[in-house]
Amino acid sequence: MTTVSIIGGSGYGGGELLRLLLSHPNVEIKQVTSRSRMGEYVYQTHPNLRKRTQLKFSDPSQLEPVDILFLAQPHGQAQHNIERYAKLAAKIIDLAADFRLRDQSLYEKWYGEKHAAPEWLSKFVYGLPELHRAEIASTNYVSGVGCNATASNLALLPLVKADLIDLESSIIIELKVGSSEGGAEGNSASHHPERASVIRTFSSFGHRHTAEVIQEMGVKDVSLTMTAVDLVRGVLATAHAKVKPGITTKDLWKAYRAVANENPFIRIVKEQRGIYRVPEPKILAGSNYADLGFELDESNGHIVSMCAIDNLMKGASGSAVQCMNLMMGWDETLGLEFSGLHPI
Amino acid sequence: MTTVSIIGGSGYGGGELLRLLLSHPNVEIKQVTSRSRMGEYVYQTHPNLRKRTQLKFSDPSQLEPVDILFLAQPHGQAQHNIERYAKLAAKIIDLAADFRLRDQSLYEKWYGEKHAAPEWLSKFVYGLPELHRAEIASTNYVSGVGCNATASNLALLPLVKADLIDLESSIIIELKVGSSEGGAEGNSASHHPERASVIRTFSSFGHRHTAEVIQEMGVKDVSLTMTAVDLVRGVLATAHAKVKPGITTKDLWKAYRAVANENPFIRIVKEQRGIYRVPEPKILAGSNYADLGFELDESNGHIVSMCAIDNLMKGASGSAVQCMNLMMGWDETLGLEFSGLHPI
Amino acid sequence: MTTVSIIGGSGYGGGELLRLLLSHPNVEIKQVTSRSRMGEYVYQTHPNLRKRTQLKFSDPSQLEPVDILFLAQPHGQAQHNIERYAKLAAKIIDLAADFRLRDQSLYEKWYGEKHAAPEWLSKFVYGLPELHRAEIASTNYVSGVGCNATASNLALLPLVKADLIDLESSIIIELKVGSSEGGAEGNSASHHPERASVIRTFSSFGHRHTAEVIQEMGVKDVSLTMTAVDLVRGVLATAHAKVKPGITTKDLWKAYRAVANENPFIRIVKEQRGIYRVPEPKILAGSNYADLGFELDESNGHIVSMCAIDNLMKGASGSAVQCMNLMMGWDETLGLEFSGLHPI
Amino acid sequence: MTTVSIIGGSGYGGGELLRLLLSHPNVEIKQVTSRSRMGEYVYQTHPNLRKRTQLKFSDPSQLEPVDILFLAQPHGQAQHNIERYAKLAAKIIDLAADFRLRDQSLYEKWYGEKHAAPEWLSKFVYGLPELHRAEIASTNYVSGVGCNATASNLALLPLVKADLIDLESSIIIELKVGSSEGGAEGNSASHHPERASVIRTFSSFGHRHTAEVIQEMGVKDVSLTMTAVDLVRGVLATAHAKVKPGITTKDLWKAYRAVANENPFIRIVKEQRGIYRVPEPKILAGSNYADLGFELDESNGHIVSMCAIDNLMKGASGSAVQCMNLMMGWDETLGLEFSGLHPI
Repeated sequence: MTTVSIIGGSGYGGGELLRLLLSHPNVEIKQVTSRSRMGEYVYQTHPNLRKRTQLKFSDPSQLEPVDILFLAQPHGQAQHNIERYAKLAAKIIDLAADFRLRDQSLYEKWYGEKHAAPEWLSKFVYGLPELHRAEIASTNYVSGVGCNATASNLALLPLVKADLIDLESSIIIELKVGSSEGGAEGNSASHHPERASVIRTFSSFGHRHTAEVIQEMGVKDVSLTMTAVDLVRGVLATAHAKVKPGITTKDLWKAYRAVANENPFIRIVKEQRGIYRVPEPKILAGSNYADLGFELDESNGHIVSMCAIDNLMKGASGSAVQCMNLMMGWDETLGLEFSGLHPI
Repeated sequence: MTTVSIIGGSGYGGGELLRLLLSHPNVEIKQVTSRSRMGEYVYQTHPNLRKRTQLKFSDPSQLEPVDILFLAQPHGQAQHNIERYAKLAAKIIDLAADFRLRDQSLYEKWYGEKHAAPEWLSKFVYGLPELHRAEIASTNYVSGVGCNATASNLALLPLVKADLIDLESSIIIELKVGSSEGGAEGNSASHHPERASVIRTFSSFGHRHTAEVIQEMGVKDVSLTMTAVDLVRGVLATAHAKVKPGITTKDLWKAYRAVANENPFIRIVKEQRGIYRVPEPKILAGSNYADLGFELDESNGHIVSMCAIDNLMKGASGSAVQCMNLMMGWDETLGLEFSGLHPI
Repeated sequence: MTTVSIIGGSGYGGGELLRLLLSHPNVEIKQVTSRSRMGEYVYQTHPNLRKRTQLKFSDPSQLEPVDILFLAQPHGQAQHNIERYAKLAAKIIDLAADFRLRDQSLYEKWYGEKHAAPEWLSKFVYGLPELHRAEIASTNYVSGVGCNATASNLALLPLVKADLIDLESSIIIELKVGSSEGGAEGNSASHHPERASVIRTFSSFGHRHTAEVIQEMGVKDVSLTMTAVDLVRGVLATAHAKVKPGITTKDLWKAYRAVANENPFIRIVKEQRGIYRVPEPKILAGSNYADLGFELDESNGHIVSMCAIDNLMKGASGSAVQCMNLMMGWDETLGLEFSGLHPI
Repeated sequence: MTTVSIIGGSGYGGGELLRLLLSHPNVEIKQVTSRSRMGEYVYQTHPNLRKRTQLKFSDPSQLEPVDILFLAQPHGQAQHNIERYAKLAAKIIDLAADFRLRDQSLYEKWYGEKHAAPEWLSKFVYGLPELHRAEIASTNYVSGVGCNATASNLALLPLVKADLIDLESSIIIELKVGSSEGGAEGNSASHHPERASVIRTFSSFGHRHTAEVIQEMGVKDVSLTMTAVDLVRGVLATAHAKVKPGITTKDLWKAYRAVANENPFIRIVKEQRGIYRVPEPKILAGSNYADLGFELDESNGHIVSMCAIDNLMKGASGSAVQCMNLMMGWDETLGLEFSGLHPI
């Protein structure tokens, strides 16, 4: 068995990772750390794991060597400890934003601070298998992905890959997001009476995840707008762009199908009837799928490309486990078989 | 114009009171205090009041004399300041639990502490007009009502008033409640991802509001069980009791109708068809109605009596304004005309 | 008292109109029709009106003359009966889409059919007071407004009025909408297990309400994308456009303030702190406010302009009552005083 | 591979069964029937199964022989076809109510009609493994379980099994249920604007599932009250009873632990701190767990016993698959490993 530990296991990303790794056939979890909950059973924090494990949260200063280390801490911590972590494990998979950007100056621009370990930026591969499958399979260091960035990148992927849009053109991506995106620590705006039933555009532009879209898609003029809605898990990205002259719906089908065929977790949802005609995040809770859909206005080339994911799975822990599978040479879908529920 | 002030205006009860008093034709608001938000516009806390008032929260230590003082502080503060408040206003209406119980020992039993101003307990009238209309009209001091107690008391009222149940018998009241009951200050359990979609029985018995049911209904063996569900405003009390031998559905209709006829805010909901056949809190948001319904199993005398209210209105601020109207000799429904919405 | 009747009172728009007119000080309701519920109490369909009225639904073929006739039928009926209605009442206020467009060919393009009474199109004024206050005050025929069109038009109004955007430029409007937009008749997609928690982009472009934005704002290249989210009442329009070169945030403040100052139901929501920093529909349930906000990216002129409304109020029945007030020379806000609730 | 077919696969129970069987390692699905959707891909109805299966709904009149037949039709159909089904498969697992009751007269009393195949009633075993594990393992015919009955039976199980309550005493069970209980076919009351945020006590007593509690627990005076709340999947049963004199919390712990130890899908949730102190259905979506909790008022013997389940899993399809595992001599938990999600 491959041994793994999770640093920072009390948050939502860490909890989801724990759920996935506990049922993964090839790994054994050695430690799950939490500074604030040391000594407590993990199922007291993650109640779905009751009767599944007797693991307790351990002290983050008492880490033992393992094969793979997962970092599930809040942003900004991993870059200060990466040297220490690298001595404990040959392979590291980060879930935070510390090592997502390759370019130090891009990091400084979007995060408003100097990076604490800039020399490590080039050692990490961006952890989205749909973009970097081969590189992930041959690296020891994989970064996390932003959940909003992932929905945005996958909405754009077929268009960029098939060269259907001009990378210089203006792209507007509207994201509608669930409350788990805010993490396990509440604040006054996440208090249920204030957060229930909201349609709250909390970020018009300038969200940090934008940097990941610029880096990964090569687009120059992209804006992410984020609106919180009443849902716990899930993100829908609705991307608006213009296709190049002459591109038809048929061309788009071809481009989307190519991406779906190459990637086990990409599905196309574009039905003429029934209830589920377009990608919808609610049926993806717990699954690693990214559902893509599109609509082209052939009169003016306006394309609406949609991507729905579970932000904690394909947008965080699911992609991390998928990366582990690739790094270890295992079947890419191992431990990620849950299909999602309907109804839910 | 009658002048009023609200002490403790940043909570949900205070905000609702503010909304009602701002549109009340006979009163003028002098001050609304908040220690933590002094100097801020009240609409920054209560966004529904934007463009309705330029009032700012004022310092609670700088209170000016007024005709009526509303106390909307957390429980336990009013009893320490009541002497001071009584010098500022001839009439006081409390929304908290400080003066709800007449019997000092009942207070100590349920609140687990000595009362700080026991001599004031007898000066207050319990502030539910449906139970004490005449006394309220002739007193200067009115207490608040517990929202769960109110739903429970009104569910039992027709049965007790018409002497249809034995006061010694066992009564079980199941309350399903919205998240605004917990107040404006959030905690880890009210964080949206944890609170959304819950069915959480957070109190099996022993809730403090039970004392108000014992006091007001004269029942001896009553239990309140509280379950949080996904709703912001609203409580439904479902009371289970046994009617006295021989009591029929017809007797019950008579008893419920009598209560509805005497009280402008009591309605009976008992339909054979349509969607809304039983009392439901969701359509009561913002209204002062208490909707009553019942079902009798004539084979064994088991009665299920239901009462739905908006916990912030009939269960708190609405009843407080209704009491003010009675104390001032105004029309009981003044400023409480909003009917509620459908759909919502 | 001015007499009014409502044709088609069993839907959500009709029910909301009924609620407003029942508490309006200057009018008396003569008839409310419903073919399917003739003879039933209106409160059986609209349970919030219990104990408020003993009105029953009447036969639409038995209409009596009144001062004002409100048409709240499904789209497509009013244009077939307008001659008959005009004989019954001097003033007509329609809530449906029949008379919203002035140009017969625009109607044919977006509705895919010939208009049944094209000669009436020029007699109606588009029923949004914020756009046509003076004309409404002097006409006898006022059309309804599309709820999505209203949120979109009001999001664009300050920009268009102050000439801050090029009318030829591309404008993308993303609307997030509640379930009451679909009307009172359910379908398989509105079944609660399927509709709860959705983020469902049901219309990428081509929605009929687009025609009202083109007509009223004079924009040439505008796209409306609609996404259903978990909420009953409410719409948020998030409009993306480019301001003209040199326009600053200060210019925008001036333009938005001008609109808010001229219109009693327009508010600006743009706060630096607190929970409610941007327009949010949830606190508008039952109120006639339209809350506007904006954010300008001065680096590239990208403006995000937001408008939140209650689709049944400012987006339908509230605007209709506001039009009535203007047509009758009454205070514009009469009967529309409800401020909305917080929390909700 | 064991071959199975599902009759009636377009409903929620059938869809959940399909999800479970598709990922079950020992079975192969031959046919899934649906009269109304013959020829359509099952993933068009159950969108979570997209990219998991290319199965299409087949004609129920064209059934082929298989090892196990699952009946997932609406109540009342299986009893008319049972002879035919028995010729097609040696083993039958019904999900409907047709064969739940052993006593023909009990059936007639609660279902108000004669049973069409009374001779078959004695051939079926009630399909709840926690009650009939050994019998299920040695029978060919297993009935379905009512979801509300299951939550109720499991809430009572520790009390009855350890003889802690008097079977003649009065027991009140309050159930709070999600919208998927109503099935996949919507009606006017399940239309989202009407069903969202409800607390609707739609059955005060007399619900058919009561018969299953009487039969399985041997209690004489039990009442089930059902209240719909805003949730899609999940039921919480809160049972109120009196324990026998002298019974303490310690006795209860022993009784509940015994049940949890004997049953892989029973867990006890009774924590002193944290967010999840009591059983809650929301974290059980998709899992087969039944979470039990209790609270004893030692002053009067009032016990509140709680059981939370996913109505489509432990309350329907999950128990059915568990029964299949037992009937086939497989590991009881096979194909039922999903732990549920947190947060959700």
